[in-house]
Amino acid sequence: MRIESDKLGQMEFSDKELYGLQTKRAYENFKLDHKATNLNLIYSIVKIKKAAAMTYINIGADKKGIYPPIINACDLILAGEANEQFITQSLQGGAGTSTNMNVNEVIANLTLKALGHPPGSYDIIHPLDDVNRGQSTNDVYPTALRITAIETLRILSIECAKLQEALQKKENEYDSIKKVGRTELMDAVPVTLGSEFGAYAQAIARDRWRLYKVEERLRQVNIGGTAIGTGTNADKQYRFGIIEVLRDLTGIGLAVSEYPLDITQNNDVFVEVSGLLKALAVNLMKVSGDLRLMNSNAIGEIRLKPMQLGSTIMPGKINPVIPEMVTQVAMRVMANDYAITTASALGEFELNAFLPLIADSLLESLELLVNAVKLFREKCIDLTQPNPVRCDVLLNSSFAFATEYTAKLGYETVSRVLEQYKEDKERAKQILDNMLPN
Amino acid sequence: MRIESDKLGQMEFSDKELYGLQTKRAYENFKLDHKATNLNLIYSIVKIKKAAAMTYINIGADKKGIYPPIINACDLILAGEANEQFITQSLQGGAGTSTNMNVNEVIANLTLKALGHPPGSYDIIHPLDDVNRGQSTNDVYPTALRITAIETLRILSIECAKLQEALQKKENEYDSIKKVGRTELMDAVPVTLGSEFGAYAQAIARDRWRLYKVEERLRQVNIGGTAIGTGTNADKQYRFGIIEVLRDLTGIGLAVSEYPLDITQNNDVFVEVSGLLKALAVNLMKVSGDLRLMNSNAIGEIRLKPMQLGSTIMPGKINPVIPEMVTQVAMRVMANDYAITTASALGEFELNAFLPLIADSLLESLELLVNAVKLFREKCIDLTQPNPVRCDVLLNSSFAFATEYTAKLGYETVSRVLEQYKEDKERAKQILDNMLPN
Amino acid sequence: MRIESDKLGQMEFSDKELYGLQTKRAYENFKLDHKATNLNLIYSIVKIKKAAAMTYINIGADKKGIYPPIINACDLILAGEANEQFITQSLQGGAGTSTNMNVNEVIANLTLKALGHPPGSYDIIHPLDDVNRGQSTNDVYPTALRITAIETLRILSIECAKLQEALQKKENEYDSIKKVGRTELMDAVPVTLGSEFGAYAQAIARDRWRLYKVEERLRQVNIGGTAIGTGTNADKQYRFGIIEVLRDLTGIGLAVSEYPLDITQNNDVFVEVSGLLKALAVNLMKVSGDLRLMNSNAIGEIRLKPMQLGSTIMPGKINPVIPEMVTQVAMRVMANDYAITTASALGEFELNAFLPLIADSLLESLELLVNAVKLFREKCIDLTQPNPVRCDVLLNSSFAFATEYTAKLGYETVSRVLEQYKEDKERAKQILDNMLPN
Amino acid sequence: MRIESDKLGQMEFSDKELYGLQTKRAYENFKLDHKATNLNLIYSIVKIKKAAAMTYINIGADKKGIYPPIINACDLILAGEANEQFITQSLQGGAGTSTNMNVNEVIANLTLKALGHPPGSYDIIHPLDDVNRGQSTNDVYPTALRITAIETLRILSIECAKLQEALQKKENEYDSIKKVGRTELMDAVPVTLGSEFGAYAQAIARDRWRLYKVEERLRQVNIGGTAIGTGTNADKQYRFGIIEVLRDLTGIGLAVSEYPLDITQNNDVFVEVSGLLKALAVNLMKVSGDLRLMNSNAIGEIRLKPMQLGSTIMPGKINPVIPEMVTQVAMRVMANDYAITTASALGEFELNAFLPLIADSLLESLELLVNAVKLFREKCIDLTQPNPVRCDVLLNSSFAFATEYTAKLGYETVSRVLEQYKEDKERAKQILDNMLPN
Repeated sequence: MRIESDKLGQMEFSDKELYGLQTKRAYENFKLDHKATNLNLIYSIVKIKKAAAMTYINIGADKKGIYPPIINACDLILAGEANEQFITQSLQGGAGTSTNMNVNEVIANLTLKALGHPPGSYDIIHPLDDVNRGQSTNDVYPTALRITAIETLRILSIECAKLQEALQKKENEYDSIKKVGRTELMDAVPVTLGSEFGAYAQAIARDRWRLYKVEERLRQVNIGGTAIGTGTNADKQYRFGIIEVLRDLTGIGLAVSEYPLDITQNNDVFVEVSGLLKALAVNLMKVSGDLRLMNSNAIGEIRLKPMQLGSTIMPGKINPVIPEMVTQVAMRVMANDYAITTASALGEFELNAFLPLIADSLLESLELLVNAVKLFREKCIDLTQPNPVRCDVLLNSSFAFATEYTAKLGYETVSRVLEQYKEDKERAKQILDNMLPN
Repeated sequence: MRIESDKLGQMEFSDKELYGLQTKRAYENFKLDHKATNLNLIYSIVKIKKAAAMTYINIGADKKGIYPPIINACDLILAGEANEQFITQSLQGGAGTSTNMNVNEVIANLTLKALGHPPGSYDIIHPLDDVNRGQSTNDVYPTALRITAIETLRILSIECAKLQEALQKKENEYDSIKKVGRTELMDAVPVTLGSEFGAYAQAIARDRWRLYKVEERLRQVNIGGTAIGTGTNADKQYRFGIIEVLRDLTGIGLAVSEYPLDITQNNDVFVEVSGLLKALAVNLMKVSGDLRLMNSNAIGEIRLKPMQLGSTIMPGKINPVIPEMVTQVAMRVMANDYAITTASALGEFELNAFLPLIADSLLESLELLVNAVKLFREKCIDLTQPNPVRCDVLLNSSFAFATEYTAKLGYETVSRVLEQYKEDKERAKQILDNMLPN
Repeated sequence: MRIESDKLGQMEFSDKELYGLQTKRAYENFKLDHKATNLNLIYSIVKIKKAAAMTYINIGADKKGIYPPIINACDLILAGEANEQFITQSLQGGAGTSTNMNVNEVIANLTLKALGHPPGSYDIIHPLDDVNRGQSTNDVYPTALRITAIETLRILSIECAKLQEALQKKENEYDSIKKVGRTELMDAVPVTLGSEFGAYAQAIARDRWRLYKVEERLRQVNIGGTAIGTGTNADKQYRFGIIEVLRDLTGIGLAVSEYPLDITQNNDVFVEVSGLLKALAVNLMKVSGDLRLMNSNAIGEIRLKPMQLGSTIMPGKINPVIPEMVTQVAMRVMANDYAITTASALGEFELNAFLPLIADSLLESLELLVNAVKLFREKCIDLTQPNPVRCDVLLNSSFAFATEYTAKLGYETVSRVLEQYKEDKERAKQILDNMLPN
Repeated sequence: MRIESDKLGQMEFSDKELYGLQTKRAYENFKLDHKATNLNLIYSIVKIKKAAAMTYINIGADKKGIYPPIINACDLILAGEANEQFITQSLQGGAGTSTNMNVNEVIANLTLKALGHPPGSYDIIHPLDDVNRGQSTNDVYPTALRITAIETLRILSIECAKLQEALQKKENEYDSIKKVGRTELMDAVPVTLGSEFGAYAQAIARDRWRLYKVEERLRQVNIGGTAIGTGTNADKQYRFGIIEVLRDLTGIGLAVSEYPLDITQNNDVFVEVSGLLKALAVNLMKVSGDLRLMNSNAIGEIRLKPMQLGSTIMPGKINPVIPEMVTQVAMRVMANDYAITTASALGEFELNAFLPLIADSLLESLELLVNAVKLFREKCIDLTQPNPVRCDVLLNSSFAFATEYTAKLGYETVSRVLEQYKEDKERAKQILDNMLPN
């Protein structure tokens, strides 16, 4: 048992609790019982702490010799050894300060423990003066969010590429399967099943490209900007050094914005990214909808692989559960965009107080999409079977052939013939053939 | 180790796994790593299973004598003893079938265990034929969602009442504190700090009333409707009996809709409820915004209680973290409404495939609001202090007094005087006083 | 040509321009070239002006004898004779002040003209001191919005009732047409086409009821509250009198809120109404989607009446254009809800600066729905034809019959039979029949 | 009076009506009384018709010699001479077919009139076989939407550049005005008023860049793809020729997509563009919010130019009406994004039936932003005045100076001093100065 106190009061801590007073207060204040702060975001904050420690060593500013053990503590966390110590809720007031403090306190106490000191000996290692040295939540949190977003975007981009390939594989496989093309759910003109999958692949290809390109703008960070981007309290050498270390640590071509005040207060970049995620969601939902329709008993042009029994009462019923899941993920991503947009618009002066909601929603969308795109490919697209017989039956029973006559016979002539023989497709075709100029 | 199999294949289960094949498949299919199905929703499904078991006993349809132990298994789950067995993701295809199956399988295996049989002995207790007897996900899931929604709405309504009272207490306390009223952030006419809190209380009173009244429509359920509301496979006595048992078990005045097909396929009621939650969110955000402004250094008419240190770099800084959290919850509720609305609009024929998204979003909104309203009251409203001196200073430095002269002197006359003496408020007042007719 | 001026400068007016300086400035300031202020909202403001004039006569406060001609001017406007004089854009800053001024100025100048004075002779009839006497935009605008909303809600409620009846007529007509019921686009159990239309009717019945009931809360108005609800500058007799006159004029049971500060600043009621409009939109979209599917070439269970040629290139193609239009209206209503919600959440202190956006979006939704519901009934539902032959064909080719065997044979037995004879529906049925206990 | 008829019936036309049967039917079918189809979209369709006519001349396919007068008719429309002939509502079923037909019919009849034939002599000039020759709404409408979007985006991008410059001008002007920086509405650290405007400029600079770059993807069009992108009925020479003519006519580097099926059915590009418009809206709302706060009586760090009187009852009151208008435009743009996203996700097979809603919402957002950004600059930013005295007063009364001591004295030491002397800023400063190491 230990006690920590500050001007607002004191709290007790068990030996297992390696977070400190600021974290525990935040835990009590934001007791929404909803959702913990995104773990990958926490890891990115830890990477920044590690990069800062390395930088202080590099520039000879580690007089107390505390940064090597601090680096060890960071590595421990990054190895997943202290996940249970991060207890702040995702929706928190204070613009992320509580999550940053949670990291600062856990690193301090992990380091103290490693050095043989009891947790809470902050005169030896101080969460703020040592771990958070030269930093502010104002620069740490947005930088960490950008790093996490880029890391997840890269994975998502790769998943999109794989989905695109899977769709193109189907494009080739179904190349010769003629079927009816439909607009507004009505038969239009003939098309191939392959070309439909090809069109899906094109859309996903655009997503892939967009998600790849947007990284550029996310790479501009404000680390070193400290309070509101002014750089107050940050050593100049540290400011120049940390970005290089962070580039190495993350493998991302990060650059410090020339205008850190801007990056600290403006969140339009996250709105931009979320908008692109929404574009992907739109495409996923479109493809899912088509697959559900083509797989329906009424149409039956394809057969989705049965993944599980579909009903607790109707034997034999199998549902297109994967596209249904994908569609729901897509709608969740759209909903998250609402939160990201509204919150981003409500920034005031030098900071946006609602950054935790933006972060949580954006990372939720990214992570959901990574998994949904992967599951969609593996458990649906890859396993889809065409039903060429059914494609043929529906094509042959349709008037989709008629359009090709209009260029030669005129729209009204063809219409008249179709109207007259609307119950006898074969006869209509014959008549039109006879009308063609030799 | 046991193995379960059906026509789609087989899977292995450890002894600790009391769910079965359908659940595990769903776990694999929907591996989004996002969020488990809402536990209160699961409990409501269990209550329905228990009510069904009791009904079969009541109507003398428990030939195998299995329903008493099934009831015990349900009670075990409701006591929280099997939470870890519910492993389906909240976003799942199949319209909730997987969650219903998860409950069916766990109840079956818990019962088998209690009876001394190994899990998986479904010839003795069958998840579908026995536990799910006379039911379908089509009726179980929407009924359970309505029950959970009502239970949480009741708590929320009580929390709103408490918030309203807390605001009215402030209304009384601050009754005599005059301050400047503002429109569009500009000084308007004088008002009291008390009346501002009174206006907040009125808004929350409307929320309370709305949330209380909407229960009516949620009470219409489709239990007994089985597949798509037709009642197929459900014994007539069971259908009449279960609703009464369920009323007793839940303490909610549930009634079976006269048109179960409607209740099975249409989800406008959830859109309605979400719309009301959004109205509450709007009010919470408005009040939070005002408190943040009044607590700001620039205005300072009230002092929110310091709940935690506000910065990792700026000593002494304290932020209005509770209203900031409440605002983020409000935006999340608005975002959830997007998902609920879009998903509800996309129902097809006899069911809405996206009900799991609707359920998850609605219950998340409800639970978030319960906690946010409570925290808002306890950690913010109750602890707020007025700053009458500052209220007075700002009022005295403003031209808010001027409007009362216009009825007697005319808008343009007063405007002219104010324009002329815009740098000398006292003089303007004097002049206007002198112009008043005796 | 005339010139009007005030402390901010002067402007020229042609003889045809009966609005004045404040209106013309607003025209210049908000030159978005987007959309004029809703005309019905303007008419409601005019009704308030008329009611005020009548009240001043009633209470003997018309010393100058100006209110009878002012009433005439109001009547002229309400007869549609001055529509072109209302030139403010719907999206305007100032919380509606410009629209209120537009009305004040036009009434003043119409009255002046009728009395033989040149427009702009405001010393005789003053837009503020006379027309706006005892009023503020703070009370006039929200009251007018409530009146317009109620008037349109009543029409919408009637249209919903008519749609419900039309659907119920189809319910009866199609009572005996058996067809396959579908969940998740897969065949489920048999149903009748009539019962499907019955389920639609039930949903619309709920909308009708909700839209009828919500009027209650809208009837609470703040007229007489003037600036921010304080009642400053409004004569007591006037305040008591105007609400009664307004009740007579509008035929709506309006009541002055006991807490006008609340009504002036809080807009949750509009969020509530918009939420209900969204619920209607959801139902309309669901029904439209089903009709489009049932009318599709692939399903063909109903035939929507051809309303227009469907393609500029594909002869014979006819599209379900009415449900498509209805769906787009539904999505527009959902989008408007976003604007209403966000804007309502951003009120500050005693007023919401963004009320014009709320008003415009809410009234647009209401008016769109009135027309869409009417067109949907007249040009789609009423004209729909069933295709019983096709219903029968699809039902007979489906396995939807199987569920009824499970109560007696068990889920797994039936499943096994279906799996074994999945290519021969008739044989499966025979086998199952033979397995039934006598 | 003339009569037109087809297989669905006949209608009468006055001499002034140059649209034909298909248009008039659409007018009746979609009588929402809401909003006409965007005129710039119609002009782009006309440009495509003109380009087609020119192409047929170029490739020697104008046997009847009708394309020169058709080109004249197009020019007449583009000169604004026939605006009143375009009567389709923006929200229409049929995926834009009615708007395309409206253009086809008006061009045909204008041409007939010019050639001395009565309108309706379609055997001479046929709206489909001649004007729409080699085209389908499927390719004309999406191509026209892209052209209009690009044209408006270019104007918007220029307006953003001008706004950026205006903000940077203020950045320079206010370079030396020190003031308090704020996070979460609480005083943080000192900043300059100039740097705040600089941060705004940076955000708008990103918008400008994004809006400029996104054109790339919009330039991919499907003209020549005709029905669903297959190219059915379109002459090969025409297909190669029209894109070049269209490039010349529009001045836009358009290219025919290699995969016209994709472009015809997928609308993610519009979701992408709308997402960027939303990012701009977010930035505009953030800046507007800051200006409103800084201009408020309570803060008063800047003075927005009075644009109009602010109240009908409170003399002297002036409101920040331009930022309020801009904020409402921003929220409308966000709402439109909802419609664009939802509609885009609901495409089915080879086309999205809801393209008219997408087009209307996107073009409304674009046009609103063009005007709002311009008005924001001209009537707000350019005319803003700083209030350096007030900036100084607030800075001097704040504890924002304290952060710079923490690097040297430690967070807790500084906190302690601030707590002890929280009522005496000057004394706190003195104490801290004394504690600094020499």
